[in-house]
Amino acid sequence: MTKVLIIAASDSSLPAMQGAKDILEEFGIDYKLTISSAHRSPKRTLELVEDFQKNGGKVIICGAGLAAHLAGVVATHASLPVIGVPLSDGPLKGLDALLATLQMPSGIPVATVGINNAKNAGLLAVQILATSNKNLENKLTEYKEKLAKGVEEKAARLT
Amino acid sequence: MTKVLIIAASDSSLPAMQGAKDILEEFGIDYKLTISSAHRSPKRTLELVEDFQKNGGKVIICGAGLAAHLAGVVATHASLPVIGVPLSDGPLKGLDALLATLQMPSGIPVATVGINNAKNAGLLAVQILATSNKNLENKLTEYKEKLAKGVEEKAARLT
Amino acid sequence: MTKVLIIAASDSSLPAMQGAKDILEEFGIDYKLTISSAHRSPKRTLELVEDFQKNGGKVIICGAGLAAHLAGVVATHASLPVIGVPLSDGPLKGLDALLATLQMPSGIPVATVGINNAKNAGLLAVQILATSNKNLENKLTEYKEKLAKGVEEKAARLT
Amino acid sequence: MTKVLIIAASDSSLPAMQGAKDILEEFGIDYKLTISSAHRSPKRTLELVEDFQKNGGKVIICGAGLAAHLAGVVATHASLPVIGVPLSDGPLKGLDALLATLQMPSGIPVATVGINNAKNAGLLAVQILATSNKNLENKLTEYKEKLAKGVEEKAARLT
Amino acid sequence: MTKVLIIAASDSSLPAMQGAKDILEEFGIDYKLTISSAHRSPKRTLELVEDFQKNGGKVIICGAGLAAHLAGVVATHASLPVIGVPLSDGPLKGLDALLATLQMPSGIPVATVGINNAKNAGLLAVQILATSNKNLENKLTEYKEKLAKGVEEKAARLT
Amino acid sequence: MTKVLIIAASDSSLPAMQGAKDILEEFGIDYKLTISSAHRSPKRTLELVEDFQKNGGKVIICGAGLAAHLAGVVATHASLPVIGVPLSDGPLKGLDALLATLQMPSGIPVATVGINNAKNAGLLAVQILATSNKNLENKLTEYKEKLAKGVEEKAARLT
Amino acid sequence: MTKVLIIAASDSSLPAMQGAKDILEEFGIDYKLTISSAHRSPKRTLELVEDFQKNGGKVIICGAGLAAHLAGVVATHASLPVIGVPLSDGPLKGLDALLATLQMPSGIPVATVGINNAKNAGLLAVQILATSNKNLENKLTEYKEKLAKGVEEKAARLT
Amino acid sequence: MTKVLIIAASDSSLPAMQGAKDILEEFGIDYKLTISSAHRSPKRTLELVEDFQKNGGKVIICGAGLAAHLAGVVATHASLPVIGVPLSDGPLKGLDALLATLQMPSGIPVATVGINNAKNAGLLAVQILATSNKNLENKLTEYKEKLAKGVEEKAARLT
Repeated sequence: MTKVLIIAASDSSLPAMQGAKDILEEFGIDYKLTISSAHRSPKRTLELVEDFQKNGGKVIICGAGLAAHLAGVVATHASLPVIGVPLSDGPLKGLDALLATLQMPSGIPVATVGINNAKNAGLLAVQILATSNKNLENKLTEYKEKLAKGVEEKAARLT
Repeated sequence: MTKVLIIAASDSSLPAMQGAKDILEEFGIDYKLTISSAHRSPKRTLELVEDFQKNGGKVIICGAGLAAHLAGVVATHASLPVIGVPLSDGPLKGLDALLATLQMPSGIPVATVGINNAKNAGLLAVQILATSNKNLENKLTEYKEKLAKGVEEKAARLT
Repeated sequence: MTKVLIIAASDSSLPAMQGAKDILEEFGIDYKLTISSAHRSPKRTLELVEDFQKNGGKVIICGAGLAAHLAGVVATHASLPVIGVPLSDGPLKGLDALLATLQMPSGIPVATVGINNAKNAGLLAVQILATSNKNLENKLTEYKEKLAKGVEEKAARLT
Repeated sequence: MTKVLIIAASDSSLPAMQGAKDILEEFGIDYKLTISSAHRSPKRTLELVEDFQKNGGKVIICGAGLAAHLAGVVATHASLPVIGVPLSDGPLKGLDALLATLQMPSGIPVATVGINNAKNAGLLAVQILATSNKNLENKLTEYKEKLAKGVEEKAARLT
Repeated sequence: MTKVLIIAASDSSLPAMQGAKDILEEFGIDYKLTISSAHRSPKRTLELVEDFQKNGGKVIICGAGLAAHLAGVVATHASLPVIGVPLSDGPLKGLDALLATLQMPSGIPVATVGINNAKNAGLLAVQILATSNKNLENKLTEYKEKLAKGVEEKAARLT
Repeated sequence: MTKVLIIAASDSSLPAMQGAKDILEEFGIDYKLTISSAHRSPKRTLELVEDFQKNGGKVIICGAGLAAHLAGVVATHASLPVIGVPLSDGPLKGLDALLATLQMPSGIPVATVGINNAKNAGLLAVQILATSNKNLENKLTEYKEKLAKGVEEKAARLT
Repeated sequence: MTKVLIIAASDSSLPAMQGAKDILEEFGIDYKLTISSAHRSPKRTLELVEDFQKNGGKVIICGAGLAAHLAGVVATHASLPVIGVPLSDGPLKGLDALLATLQMPSGIPVATVGINNAKNAGLLAVQILATSNKNLENKLTEYKEKLAKGVEEKAARLT
Repeated sequence: MTKVLIIAASDSSLPAMQGAKDILEEFGIDYKLTISSAHRSPKRTLELVEDFQKNGGKVIICGAGLAAHLAGVVATHASLPVIGVPLSDGPLKGLDALLATLQMPSGIPVATVGINNAKNAGLLAVQILATSNKNLENKLTEYKEKLAKGVEEKAARLT
């Protein structure tokens, strides 16, 4: 059963969303990656969200640039946690996408992560799933230990 | 027949949209003002747009603050020109609304006016209607002359 | 009869305005593209606008960077809808052009589209013309459907 | 059993966090609200997080202004989802807190919501808990319907 | 003979331009203050500039807010030095006016001073006139000494 | 007799100041170009300014990046008009230099031109000298005509 | 012997520098507070710095707003550590002062603290003095403990 | 005995910290360079700081990008002066790191230097050590003279 749905706003955004895929695979989470636009394919976006939610999906990750409405529009139609990844498309380098994703009105939250940080979106999805999955919780603890070890190894190489 | 539809994203945005009403009344344009949110009432927003378009409406003006998606979402569902008024709600003073309204992806334009400048949104609607209405075109020419005269009168009072 | 006038502020801005040309040609709109500067050739700019308006022109699209005054100056001399495309010339990447184009005083609106988004300027011009042209309105509806289909095709290729 | 821990970075931040409390109470979630600073009381912060996690806590909400490190520091010590609320303290109106909360390095996500938007932080916490609680999921669906109805009622009052 | 022309973009900008008047009076410079808008009264603005230049005027000071085009438009029509004072009207607090005044294209400079700093605009006008007026040059030297003395007196009061 | 002094804050800023040299040579103005830093060579900077002013110099142009203090420090020691060119050194692309050059306190103006726009600094210096030099004034009028002609020629090539 | 010199750029900046005074008094540090401007009283500023350094002074704290050059100019003339406090004067709320204080060129550092955060400037001065004063070091450790206790007390009052 | 500890937040930040190393070597200061992250290796960071402080260390320099918490977290655990170098990692070019490093709450200062300016961080560390080391103080005076001479030599080469 697909637990996480990743939606990239266009095919040009696919590479920027790779980090989310990688993390979900690393943690063994069943996910689906697709393309849909809040503006160019609104019906498709709506149907994707409704189908996913009906079929027991748990978390949706949206990546979009510029006036990034995708996460907000998805959050409008879902009761699930929606994670937004602002992408640094265009001359404003993602400041536009950041504000368009984050500054949602009261009542419709989007869990926003850093600009282009699809990897953290994936991890946040894992953390959310781990709130009801002891196994994942343990894996997250191990992941943190690996992060710390990684730093120590790099530091050791300095001397 | 209603020619212009003004949508405020919430009742707290109504005063900021007054300028659009005033201009449309000054030019004798048939308009309707209502409240609908891209996020809190998506179905209502969609129906408003479809009904308006079906009934021969010509221009839609949207006012919203923060991650202002309203104009973009309306533009998604309409082929009509959509005018966006970014509102200076919240601590970022409308910079968020400006970018969320303006930086639309290719294919779905929003005609954005200055922050809080509902009056200019109204005028732009009149200009659009005037492209097929000689009478309105003449009124716009008179309006420009009044603006110039207004400046001259204020300057005259200085000396 | 020329319906849309595209003015680029300098020859170096011509490539950035290509998107507007492409859209107008795709929709079969009669347009003219020229170069004129608000600052370097003010008289020429004024005459272009007055001639275009006199000869039944309907919409003017202006592209300029830096302290982009072109759209505002054109809007000063025209009663027609003026669309401004802020260009990302210079180190501030179009934030200067955006604010100089958008933040017009009450009375003189400029319909601003996203930074470098000449394609959307072209589409907005088509939408404006379509308010009195059923044929164009239908083409816009088809255009929207093509956008949605394009997304679906890209998504289909993913699996 | 406390499911959600709300940490305000100082007592002056308590009023800004009220919205989170209200939502958690509205949804009947067991929560605890306390004060701790990443910088002034680092040991207390660490112990709060470790105790909460050990005792089956599920989500942590952090509110801080300026160089808002609180959510990031908490996320460092927890495997749970951490929600950050940037507060608009000081002359930069929360832009500093926003970036200091959101732009976390890969490996340590913070789910950031809009500036001062503690209410959305509360809702996001509910959404996370609802991924394993059918009852909450239903309440969220009702909540969305109430939002839509609220808009309709306000619109109805206009005419 | 009027040496300096001060143009405020609207009557609401008059108080912000007071500092320029005060300095010009303090230095005994013959000046004229008037109101004209680049957008609302373009013809009046053009005539003011041409008359002033024809009659031996030397420096023009322009104060405007928002998409402040006034100084740029005046500089288009004058060979004289044009000083721009960006005014902090509107929610962006003069950042828009600053960029719209300062970022002029090559060929048409505007001597921009700090936001709302009409006093410095007045002083810059005096400095320009002093390049061919020994008497003014001496007064400027005295003015600098007074500034230094003022600081010393304030410091003396501290102890 | 040297009329204009150009100071670049470092040798790496020399290329960015080329535009000022070119304009002064085009207008036949006697100028001197040198390097001095407000911070690394404060004594040299002070002596340059005092010597220049004593020897009948008329205008100083300063180019600096980052926390660009050069123009402000020069303006502190001169009664002459000082023109500041903010340079886009470093990651903030000149926004830092712009604000550090422009936002001078009351009493010490700096005539700031656009980021990297040394050419406009040169032109502004010419305009200042032209306030007491009929010959230069005529050359400036011709220069403006050449600008307009240049635009027309480029436009002609389009068709 | 005066260890710390606090310079406010003007008398209007005195209240904003109070926090530095309070901390230095709390730690029993001998300090002097005065007013001097980089631009209005450059000679006075230079003499203050040279005298202070000659007489065994150790740290200088400078508070200034707008194009805040004071700390940079002081750092130019001193080998001592110079601490800059950007003040939120004017419409840009200290962003200008921040960049003008912080972005110093290589070779002349300014230790910059947060906008208006004179208290932290005082603490940083104490920390610097404590690098050669065991007594102060102990007091700083106690100060940190007091901060933590303060948070605990406030948290205790919540329940 | 190690006097200065340089901590880079990751191995990718090492090159950006080179300037600090160079200066400390030029001044003959005993330093240690290592890698540790506030978020990925919090325990290691804490132990580094406590060990360094226990062993008589005097100044800590931290370099980090994005939501740069490293300097702030280090300052939380040390009574020593902590110098923060914001690094221009990511699309916001260091504006995020700047604000996350600088805008510390009252009680926990970080001495922030310019974006990427590790060289100035090194110099500031030397200045701090020089407050109790006459030899270093003399070297700093010589260093300043060398800076001035360097400018003069470059200027001499111009003619």
